Amino acid sequence: MRITQIIQKTYPLNSKIKNAVIDFSQMTVSVVAIHTDKVSNGKPIIGYGFNSNGRYSQEGILKDRIIPRLLNANAEELLENNIDNLDPAKCYKVMMKNEKPGGHGERSVAIGTIDMAIWDIIAKIENKPLYKYLGEKYCNGVYKNEVYTYAAGGYYYEGKNVQRLQDEIKHYMDMGFNDCKIKVGAISQTDDLKRIEAVLKILDSGENLAVDVNGRFTLPQALDFLKEIEPLNLMWYEEAVDPLDYLSNASIAQNTKIPIATGENIFSYVDARNLIRYGGMNPQRDFIQVDPVLSYGLIEYLEILKMFKVNGWSPNRCIPHGGHQFGLHVAAGLGLYGNEAYPEVFYPFGKFSKDMEIVNGKVTLPEYPGIGYESVPEIYNIMKDLK
Amino acid sequence: MRITQIIQKTYPLNSKIKNAVIDFSQMTVSVVAIHTDKVSNGKPIIGYGFNSNGRYSQEGILKDRIIPRLLNANAEELLENNIDNLDPAKCYKVMMKNEKPGGHGERSVAIGTIDMAIWDIIAKIENKPLYKYLGEKYCNGVYKNEVYTYAAGGYYYEGKNVQRLQDEIKHYMDMGFNDCKIKVGAISQTDDLKRIEAVLKILDSGENLAVDVNGRFTLPQALDFLKEIEPLNLMWYEEAVDPLDYLSNASIAQNTKIPIATGENIFSYVDARNLIRYGGMNPQRDFIQVDPVLSYGLIEYLEILKMFKVNGWSPNRCIPHGGHQFGLHVAAGLGLYGNEAYPEVFYPFGKFSKDMEIVNGKVTLPEYPGIGYESVPEIYNIMKDLK
Repeated sequence: MRITQIIQKTYPLNSKIKNAVIDFSQMTVSVVAIHTDKVSNGKPIIGYGFNSNGRYSQEGILKDRIIPRLLNANAEELLENNIDNLDPAKCYKVMMKNEKPGGHGERSVAIGTIDMAIWDIIAKIENKPLYKYLGEKYCNGVYKNEVYTYAAGGYYYEGKNVQRLQDEIKHYMDMGFNDCKIKVGAISQTDDLKRIEAVLKILDSGENLAVDVNGRFTLPQALDFLKEIEPLNLMWYEEAVDPLDYLSNASIAQNTKIPIATGENIFSYVDARNLIRYGGMNPQRDFIQVDPVLSYGLIEYLEILKMFKVNGWSPNRCIPHGGHQFGLHVAAGLGLYGNEAYPEVFYPFGKFSKDMEIVNGKVTLPEYPGIGYESVPEIYNIMKDLK
Repeated sequence: MRITQIIQKTYPLNSKIKNAVIDFSQMTVSVVAIHTDKVSNGKPIIGYGFNSNGRYSQEGILKDRIIPRLLNANAEELLENNIDNLDPAKCYKVMMKNEKPGGHGERSVAIGTIDMAIWDIIAKIENKPLYKYLGEKYCNGVYKNEVYTYAAGGYYYEGKNVQRLQDEIKHYMDMGFNDCKIKVGAISQTDDLKRIEAVLKILDSGENLAVDVNGRFTLPQALDFLKEIEPLNLMWYEEAVDPLDYLSNASIAQNTKIPIATGENIFSYVDARNLIRYGGMNPQRDFIQVDPVLSYGLIEYLEILKMFKVNGWSPNRCIPHGGHQFGLHVAAGLGLYGNEAYPEVFYPFGKFSKDMEIVNGKVTLPEYPGIGYESVPEIYNIMKDLK
């Protein structure tokens, strides 16, 4: 087999939402299609990917460095030894050729985008849903058919009052979620606490609500806010400080009774190892949210999971950021705790397959070969038109 | 005043050199020109910049995010309060608008490239060489007129034997350098030691030679190599391990008698703080090589220097990576130990002003307003044609 062409395009998200740090009105996403000469049911196999949600499109790095390296590689550099399929580790190596160490951001997203499409191809050639392929290959044949998920929302936007926030959360519960997450840290503590209080009226208990600061607080602010929310027994307290400020993270970890969560802005194996070495997190209590698509793709993520295990962290403490269907496959196939969902934000790239139902906070995996973006009409409409 | 247009272009470097990790035949550089409506000697003031050396061009991020933000900003967002000149801290803030924390790489290079051109404009409007402007503004009027530098070279390339390596080093000494640096780690230890031995025959002492691994070694390899070179009393042992593997760096720092150096792949304030917190480096012995152009520019670098001081590190322990004329101004204006030079590599972007002489390992700063790329014909030929 061979890759015949790789198409990439930037799509605007045009969202009106905000978190504590940025607004998303200018946010973009890279969408890619990798064409192969393999045929299934009379049609050439095409792998699709996009760059997760919340970081910008990577058109420049894809066009200038990553895609040419793949297209210029020969078969032995890309394919499994005795199977006519792509070898994702070899593809990773080709994409990282002539890249210096350090500086993990942007290029990690570009490579993760292509990596997603590569796994889509691999599972399609195997004619299996990706999660089954992953469970068989990496977890002794063990995989889940359904995955825990929670509704990430509660963003700020113009004119959104507490009533509308409550309506949003009610809607998530009506959809079948048990748990949700809201943004905090962009307004006064008093006003944020009112928002939290209002949301808790809708939910069964504090354990159904996580709050996310997106790294905005200083350590004193983070500890101050923690003091207020600790009695509420929340699900977790996310990215209270800068994602690379391991010392402050460790200070919070040492002073909290509720779980903490971080990792969505940790973009490489070495950065994840630093989080474990210095972040002071508790593998019995806390959660790690590294998003494989933002951090060089699944080959790097498999190494991260191995490193976690060596350090006493089970995959069952991982809940990737991103809210994409690829993440559901990864969670189901590699035994993660679950995966984020964005039911109302990052449209359409937060959508799951049209026949996937959320029941009691869990989502059943789709049975299409590959990732199954063909069964997400809003996303596939974009992907199938890539030219 | 206002910015009237910003032009950026990618140039290939087409170099045949290699270090231990990458070859540079595909290396590119972003060159930018920022046009203003300010006039000096009858001509509009234009600021020039490029993205240092050794990391790829940032055309995508510049075009999609950084340049539009600057062009869409209004005057109050960019200018000094009571002076008709750009405020570099305000410009930095505009460029970082809607950027999430973490993921410091690529975008840090894009912003550093524009930042270089902004300082060129600022000093040209002040009608001073940049180093004098920096010394006056940030160091109580103290600046150096000459700066320590060393010749970074000794790369691997096809057909380069020990004789040619010696010729290269002799050439640097003839140019006026006292010290030089060579790459190690890409071939067997035995062969690298032969290269080091050959170079030492040309130099006065081991203290005139630094060796650079470019992050390639594992910790055992790094300690093994150290054992061999320690008796040679070298100038420094650079980036022996991955730049973000602070634990291994600290292990080397604790076990070495010769200085160590790292930082060229540390691209932000928070990463630099982690190096200080966890890297175990010795502020009386070691060197930090953070390159302001790769790490969000001089505003971020000024914050890094402040953080260093709080932690007992003098600016006099800093020798920026990059070998660009901007780095010479930064070193002279902010009291750094010195600045790297690339006399034979990264042509033409390693060139300094045509009238700058290297005498006894020091280079005298140029007296042109701004950075003075107008006096580097090989670079200015490219910059003046930016359209």
